[in-house]
Amino acid sequence: MSDDTQTYARTDRTTPTRYRDRAVWEREAIHAILDSAYICHLGFIADGAPVVLPTIYARVGDRLYVHGSTGSRPMRGAGADEGLAVCVTVTLVDGLVLTKAAFNHSVNYRSVVAHGTAHQVTDPEELAVAVDALVDHSVPGRSDDIRRPTAKELAATAVVRLDLDEVSAKSRTGGANDDEEDLGLPYWAGVVPVTTVHGTPEPHPSTDVPLPAYLTDLHR
Amino acid sequence: MSDDTQTYARTDRTTPTRYRDRAVWEREAIHAILDSAYICHLGFIADGAPVVLPTIYARVGDRLYVHGSTGSRPMRGAGADEGLAVCVTVTLVDGLVLTKAAFNHSVNYRSVVAHGTAHQVTDPEELAVAVDALVDHSVPGRSDDIRRPTAKELAATAVVRLDLDEVSAKSRTGGANDDEEDLGLPYWAGVVPVTTVHGTPEPHPSTDVPLPAYLTDLHR
Repeated sequence: MSDDTQTYARTDRTTPTRYRDRAVWEREAIHAILDSAYICHLGFIADGAPVVLPTIYARVGDRLYVHGSTGSRPMRGAGADEGLAVCVTVTLVDGLVLTKAAFNHSVNYRSVVAHGTAHQVTDPEELAVAVDALVDHSVPGRSDDIRRPTAKELAATAVVRLDLDEVSAKSRTGGANDDEEDLGLPYWAGVVPVTTVHGTPEPHPSTDVPLPAYLTDLHR
Repeated sequence: MSDDTQTYARTDRTTPTRYRDRAVWEREAIHAILDSAYICHLGFIADGAPVVLPTIYARVGDRLYVHGSTGSRPMRGAGADEGLAVCVTVTLVDGLVLTKAAFNHSVNYRSVVAHGTAHQVTDPEELAVAVDALVDHSVPGRSDDIRRPTAKELAATAVVRLDLDEVSAKSRTGGANDDEEDLGLPYWAGVVPVTTVHGTPEPHPSTDVPLPAYLTDLHR
């Protein structure tokens, strides 16, 4: 973090080479995007080659907790003292931007890219906080309405921590941007909004309680 | 590809260490997932560290075309003779799986992970095919109803090609899987479906043609 705690410090790799005006480093804007997606894409290096895997995650303050697999390669790397170099990326698609020229087609989106070193969470108290955060990330309030994890289950849960430090957000909003000379062409231009919605919750046959309020709100 | 052209050859890194029963290597299943998402996450190595960026892409047969930024680091890498080692990952979230125990919570999803070496597309004919595919990927039929790219615009469009070869899909479907001893607990368990939907297309003021059929279908 920079001295101004409202903004993450800018570095070479959090400064895009293109569309720099779409990038922001504001803490609040970055956190809002991180709190809105279901999954992240975790990038790391294995045998000299890049690997990108989708997984669940949660934010607690300026920390990201990313779910891994016990015994998997990235977890072993993150378990070592030096940690594991990672890039965690979160992206939401908000619209398809159709322009009269093929060249100006675009996408409305919000994304966050976080660079750093991930460490496996081994402290039992921190692990318990992280697991609650993972459960609450998609369904706020859920961690108060479940059978709590046992010590054995916690020990079998692999979570890595990445401190948010070298991080930026990038987004595009707004309508179609055609070149002046293309505006009169007889093609449809505009935006097709894209949204992620929840369907009606489908209870498991063993469920004999009414739909909890936190799922009613989610469904709205 | 393996001799059996219906299935991609399995390698160590396309064989998951966990939940191996969720993985498939079938060409048709992999293509179906690739054709269903709007964006991919492109992983590569820059200055020894992993980088994961969201971008648009399209599939043409057994090739992925991934959009880049002219002059950006990955494009320069992919422009070299040896190409750029990449991992391209595509993920769709289909549902939140809530179980009575925190430990068994899960997500229904479909994902594809493709490893390989990306090369910049420099042949003008291949570039034209790739750009049409990128336009049609989100909105099938769109490339027939636009102002076609000029040679200059094509030359300013950065696209890399990744041959699908070392690639696998992984998915989870179905309901909540609690342990037998948790089934009687008084918590809601089940699935909250998650779907991506299109909103009503919002025309740009310059649009003076009716909504094309390919957008009506998309909206449905």
